[in-house]
Amino acid sequence: MTRLVDALQGLVTPEMNQIAAQEGVSAEFVREGVAQGTIVLLRNTRRLHMTPLGVGAGLKTKVSASIGLHGEKSNLAAETAKIEAAVAVGTDSIMDLSVSGDIDAMRRRSLDSTPTPVGTLPLYQALAEAAQKYGSPLKMDTEQLFAVMERQAADGVDFLALHCGLTMEVVRRAKQERRVDPLVSYGGAHLMGWMLHHHQENPLYEHYDRVLAIARKYDVTVSLADGMRPGCLADSLSGSQVQELVVFGELVRRAKEAGVQVMVKGPGHVPLPQLKATVTLQKSLCQGAPYFVFGPLVTDLAAGYDHIAAAIGGAVSAWAGAEFICYVTSSEHLGLPDIHHVREGVIAARIAAHAADLAKGLPGAADWDLELSRARKRLDWTKQAALAIDPKRVEYMRKSRSNDTSAGCSMCGKLCAMEMVAKHLGAGKLSC
Amino acid sequence: MTRLVDALQGLVTPEMNQIAAQEGVSAEFVREGVAQGTIVLLRNTRRLHMTPLGVGAGLKTKVSASIGLHGEKSNLAAETAKIEAAVAVGTDSIMDLSVSGDIDAMRRRSLDSTPTPVGTLPLYQALAEAAQKYGSPLKMDTEQLFAVMERQAADGVDFLALHCGLTMEVVRRAKQERRVDPLVSYGGAHLMGWMLHHHQENPLYEHYDRVLAIARKYDVTVSLADGMRPGCLADSLSGSQVQELVVFGELVRRAKEAGVQVMVKGPGHVPLPQLKATVTLQKSLCQGAPYFVFGPLVTDLAAGYDHIAAAIGGAVSAWAGAEFICYVTSSEHLGLPDIHHVREGVIAARIAAHAADLAKGLPGAADWDLELSRARKRLDWTKQAALAIDPKRVEYMRKSRSNDTSAGCSMCGKLCAMEMVAKHLGAGKLSC
Repeated sequence: MTRLVDALQGLVTPEMNQIAAQEGVSAEFVREGVAQGTIVLLRNTRRLHMTPLGVGAGLKTKVSASIGLHGEKSNLAAETAKIEAAVAVGTDSIMDLSVSGDIDAMRRRSLDSTPTPVGTLPLYQALAEAAQKYGSPLKMDTEQLFAVMERQAADGVDFLALHCGLTMEVVRRAKQERRVDPLVSYGGAHLMGWMLHHHQENPLYEHYDRVLAIARKYDVTVSLADGMRPGCLADSLSGSQVQELVVFGELVRRAKEAGVQVMVKGPGHVPLPQLKATVTLQKSLCQGAPYFVFGPLVTDLAAGYDHIAAAIGGAVSAWAGAEFICYVTSSEHLGLPDIHHVREGVIAARIAAHAADLAKGLPGAADWDLELSRARKRLDWTKQAALAIDPKRVEYMRKSRSNDTSAGCSMCGKLCAMEMVAKHLGAGKLSC
Repeated sequence: MTRLVDALQGLVTPEMNQIAAQEGVSAEFVREGVAQGTIVLLRNTRRLHMTPLGVGAGLKTKVSASIGLHGEKSNLAAETAKIEAAVAVGTDSIMDLSVSGDIDAMRRRSLDSTPTPVGTLPLYQALAEAAQKYGSPLKMDTEQLFAVMERQAADGVDFLALHCGLTMEVVRRAKQERRVDPLVSYGGAHLMGWMLHHHQENPLYEHYDRVLAIARKYDVTVSLADGMRPGCLADSLSGSQVQELVVFGELVRRAKEAGVQVMVKGPGHVPLPQLKATVTLQKSLCQGAPYFVFGPLVTDLAAGYDHIAAAIGGAVSAWAGAEFICYVTSSEHLGLPDIHHVREGVIAARIAAHAADLAKGLPGAADWDLELSRARKRLDWTKQAALAIDPKRVEYMRKSRSNDTSAGCSMCGKLCAMEMVAKHLGAGKLSC
């Protein structure tokens, strides 16, 4: 039985208790969220030694970092190092987006290298295998796609990203409309190419019951991936994008009926005023299923700093109700991220997630800031570093200050403003 | 006569035409904004060869970078290099916050080193001089403070940041309330210390007419600086902060009556849900005067990455109506920024400003993103770089890609998703 079935039967499992304790909510709250489909618990039944991750309404906003083999120069060791770096700076999840090389080996390495859930995209591997065996990804066949999906799930992958909503109807709309950049999703583009070439419905939609059967077997969460993710602000909330979201609503319902946990992946490039509308629409169409947003980027101009554009969009989206943020690195639109980009991408997403948790009033969120601020006031640098979003960075930057040594604050030189006021306001020791 | 007087008399000056052309609005719109006090034109009448900067409602959101001599290890050359770096990545303004060393020399160097407006804080220099001459900043006297103010204005400074609103009534509230961090403003803390020590009203409030007379003489814009800026989320919208903002409302009115342009400086640390309320309050109390926000930071935890926390707060504040963003660097709370921190601080603020301009629907804002997105679709890397927020960064990161050479996109390796779909959707060349 799956967690969803357990929850629907009123069962509070030890796992729900564990997540409730981590999140500062009651176990019954977790159970009810799982039963209603507003919370998913990410853990493949085969990954016994992993703490499950709760994602959804009323829980802390989570972040995910993506790695993977792409092209000839990438390799297992480098991608593993990125996973370790992402985990070290507090990612809640890893996605292995490998599209080339030894994808099986990379996935198994990913699962071994992180205590977090791991998500994968079976379509990527199926396309790569078809390209390798038959010379073109267009030669991928349905059986092969499902064989890869089964293999990935059996390996212990915790969530599978699947473009199940890219139906012929969506393709028809995509053909009609004049998006600036018709398709920027790697999986979506390949899948649409395959559908157009074979004049065949999307196998992930047509055989959605098979998808659900595999997911159910390992209690893998289905992540409905958006093929029509907008690639620029001008394409946000286009007909094809919203059409796919409508289909996701249908697929969420079917997943829940089958006892399968499900979440929905979202955009992309979204202007600030459309973020709340986008999240509200997803929540309504998808019956409150967790929303896993990619960024979103609030401008198209920030190449080289897209982690910052994404932090803005992520914070506002999560405040509006999104619960899971897929990081965007500073190398987005330009190349593959190196380990430094991975690290800052995770931190940027975590800042966005926490800012949103404060806005949502989640249990414990404001206490964390308050405790740090009190340490700051006391000039307690050890505690300030320990409570910071990246303690190592704080320690490093404190050490590299030009005028270090004392516990003094950083801006005042010999004129200490704070000592003066502290004396008069009886405010104790103060820092800048 | 000042620009405000010109505008009130219905005069459209060549300067207003120049700004109108830059901003994509009519000259009459600029004139009316200046007349109503919703727009300020930053340029000291003595800085003849500088393009004035328009800041205010209906104009593009502007950003400012702060530099300055602080402590024994800082020096003129290093701070000048920071100015040049900030200008190179597109800052609209420089603030020279020097508190030590040869403050006169630094200010003159600042004015010579940037084509942008320069703002200063006379109080800092007056305190430093009192400390040097009499052994304590508490020995600063009013005449000396105004002498410094006159000297700075006569040198050509375009806006003066002045803590005129920190009255005895504000101090009384600050004493009553229990803020986590009672005072984090350097100028505010010293001024309050001075007021408490001398049992005297704030000279910048008591002698506000003298402030206005100096400002009028050089058409310097007064920037009402907030001494009660909150230093942590828990202190946001406290009684003393709002009391000071109420006083600012009075001071804005008096400035306008005196023909002096005025803007208001704002927080600080502000949780996401309080940003709009804070801006709305400022707009109402201060009769629509431009709001110059510092960040704001949406979490207290992001030391080492405060430019990212500030980008989130800056974007949402500017969307809510703030028109001028003072950058926060990644070294905030930890030390003085180096040249790299300055650069990324300016870029983060510019991303926030532009995201807000898109949200506000400002003329030309969406066109910029659209043009870049079209270049991205065409795989036109030259134009993509040229249109990016930091062209040099894009060029550098493209060059350092591991699998560079072709015009291909970055993620697909040998499987090009875009070629496949382009063929079927007749969408021309596509990029990831």
